[in-house]
Amino acid sequence: MSVLPQSVEKVINEFSKLPGVGPKTAARMTYHYLRSPNHDAKQLADALNDMDLNVSFCKKCFNVSDKKICDICSSLLRKENKLCVVEESLDVVAFENSAVYDGFYFVLGGVISPAEGIGAEDLRFNDLKKRVNELLRELEGKKLEIIVATNPNLEGEASASYIHDMFAKELKEGTIEISRLAMGLPTGADLEYADRLTLKRALEGRRNI
Amino acid sequence: MSVLPQSVEKVINEFSKLPGVGPKTAARMTYHYLRSPNHDAKQLADALNDMDLNVSFCKKCFNVSDKKICDICSSLLRKENKLCVVEESLDVVAFENSAVYDGFYFVLGGVISPAEGIGAEDLRFNDLKKRVNELLRELEGKKLEIIVATNPNLEGEASASYIHDMFAKELKEGTIEISRLAMGLPTGADLEYADRLTLKRALEGRRNI
Repeated sequence: MSVLPQSVEKVINEFSKLPGVGPKTAARMTYHYLRSPNHDAKQLADALNDMDLNVSFCKKCFNVSDKKICDICSSLLRKENKLCVVEESLDVVAFENSAVYDGFYFVLGGVISPAEGIGAEDLRFNDLKKRVNELLRELEGKKLEIIVATNPNLEGEASASYIHDMFAKELKEGTIEISRLAMGLPTGADLEYADRLTLKRALEGRRNI
Repeated sequence: MSVLPQSVEKVINEFSKLPGVGPKTAARMTYHYLRSPNHDAKQLADALNDMDLNVSFCKKCFNVSDKKICDICSSLLRKENKLCVVEESLDVVAFENSAVYDGFYFVLGGVISPAEGIGAEDLRFNDLKKRVNELLRELEGKKLEIIVATNPNLEGEASASYIHDMFAKELKEGTIEISRLAMGLPTGADLEYADRLTLKRALEGRRNI
């Protein structure tokens, strides 16, 4: 005989599937909903169902969207000679919230990570190729810049190299160029606490003033 | 124009209502469901709806249950001369999992906490009174022991005192007795790191060996 009703156990079990959420936290979360007087559980359930039904991925950039083509990809105000390749949708949110970029995006859906068993075939490299060709047709000879904005770690670097190799022909022809986000010290950082690699990159990327 | 579809924002917003979950964590949680291939979002939604519809509180002990009277309160194997008063349902789970108690429970629904604006009227003291009277009738003169198992902190102590005062008449008549969980060093603790109050309580509660 379990102390908790099965339906409560089931919610705890579902919450436990979340990354970084253990059984204790999952139980706490479930109890929050059991205690909440205004049917928060139902509200979350409705929101989840709504999301499950209405949200999928933009056919061009693969960002989450409730439209076939997302607002960014269908915008006329975006520069079509810039394509920023990011790991996941939250990275698009980060760029958009800081309002520092005016081109298009492409969401890879992750990075190559042999340790986690994620190979190139699990990511959207083929779709990226298609999207780049589409943009090149639209640009009619103008150069396309691919900005690889994967995270500055081993996996991110590996994926950036993969993209570089993928477009070897186009790079040679000069129809596209590929850049990587600058690495160096973050704003407000303390030199004293910077790691070796960050310092090395900051030095390599130094600029005249 | 928001970057994220409204239904995604809504799920993030709902998750943010959880205690200890900020907007970043809520976004991470939401993205887990967006990425999950096997409709985890729908599964969680179904589990939540099921819980919302089927789970309420046992009419006797106010523990969560999918029955009117929970399995513990309707069990014939439980000692009816012991009533353990706890703050919340998870405390019942803790007792049951350790299989150290064979009486009934009563879930207060919290503790008196002036700092958080929770007064005696927000808790189930009236229902506790009713339940105690019910048990006293059933016991037909046998003594009832109320074990107050609120947490060993200021609020828990205040609630324990409140319960003590509530049953002043019964205590005088000798129909009930009230006890509090022992305080002292937890198993495996290191004396060196014990706080002053714990040491004081451990000394006060010392036993002959």
